Amino acid sequence: MDCNKDLISRLKKIEGQIRGIQKMMEDERYCVDILTQIAAVRSAITKVGILVLEKHTKGCISEAIKNDEQEEKIAELMQVLSKFLK
Amino acid sequence: MDCNKDLISRLKKIEGQIRGIQKMMEDERYCVDILTQIAAVRSAITKVGILVLEKHTKGCISEAIKNDEQEEKIAELMQVLSKFLK
Amino acid sequence: MDCNKDLISRLKKIEGQIRGIQKMMEDERYCVDILTQIAAVRSAITKVGILVLEKHTKGCISEAIKNDEQEEKIAELMQVLSKFLK
Amino acid sequence: MDCNKDLISRLKKIEGQIRGIQKMMEDERYCVDILTQIAAVRSAITKVGILVLEKHTKGCISEAIKNDEQEEKIAELMQVLSKFLK
Repeated sequence: MDCNKDLISRLKKIEGQIRGIQKMMEDERYCVDILTQIAAVRSAITKVGILVLEKHTKGCISEAIKNDEQEEKIAELMQVLSKFLK
Repeated sequence: MDCNKDLISRLKKIEGQIRGIQKMMEDERYCVDILTQIAAVRSAITKVGILVLEKHTKGCISEAIKNDEQEEKIAELMQVLSKFLK
Repeated sequence: MDCNKDLISRLKKIEGQIRGIQKMMEDERYCVDILTQIAAVRSAITKVGILVLEKHTKGCISEAIKNDEQEEKIAELMQVLSKFLK
Repeated sequence: MDCNKDLISRLKKIEGQIRGIQKMMEDERYCVDILTQIAAVRSAITKVGILVLEKHTKGCISEAIKNDEQEEKIAELMQVLSKFLK
């Protein structure tokens, strides 16, 4: 699926960013610079989460709604969503 | 520094988790399972952020406070913190 | 709608908590105690957000999906969701 | 303290916003508009949290650091911070 390719390439980029942060730590770089990179990686991962959520809503959730079986699916969706939100 | 070793090993683990999510996407696994993994990685990255913040507060911030130069350092700390919080 | 009554009573409770934090500030209470209350109010508001999101998904989103008009509604949903997530 | 006055007035404004959201629910306004207001209130509360955190770092934390008693205070700070972050 095309959207999977986009998501996988985003994850590869995040993987590289995380290796970059490891390098910054090995080089004992200034903590605030490291924190800025960590915040950027966190936002990038959150964005991937929202894209997967969109894909799921357009796919499985829509199908369940069309078959009048949405109760469980929507409850499941809210449960996973609260793992992202404090 | 010992605490750097801990942080680097946490990041290596996160790197592995991200490769795992890529594999789940290639295998077209169920979106909610993928979202659960993404939320776990996001929490792990946030934890690394808090540990770096703690290290920074004990290190640079403490030093600046002892030398009565904390104004700028604390403003900088709050600015990077707001990159984590919406 | 019953679920509205529940949401409104949650908001009334949050309103009271916020007045409580104002009182703590007037009494110059310890900052960490104030921060703990602010975090609790933030979680309570987030919970109301998730409940409204659930209501919206069961209502307008489901209807749009049944009428095959979900594209715009789902995009709108993701946009408002990213206002909660960093 | 002046900064308390600013924080209290921010909280009064948030209190008004929450009453506004209650009214929107009573009027059965569109969920996405309600969610947008909830996200705005959540950001405003987060901002108050960061300002209290800044005040605490400049006050109690600085004092503890000058008296070489920061260990416990910094651990306490990180603990309350993780109540804001997932």
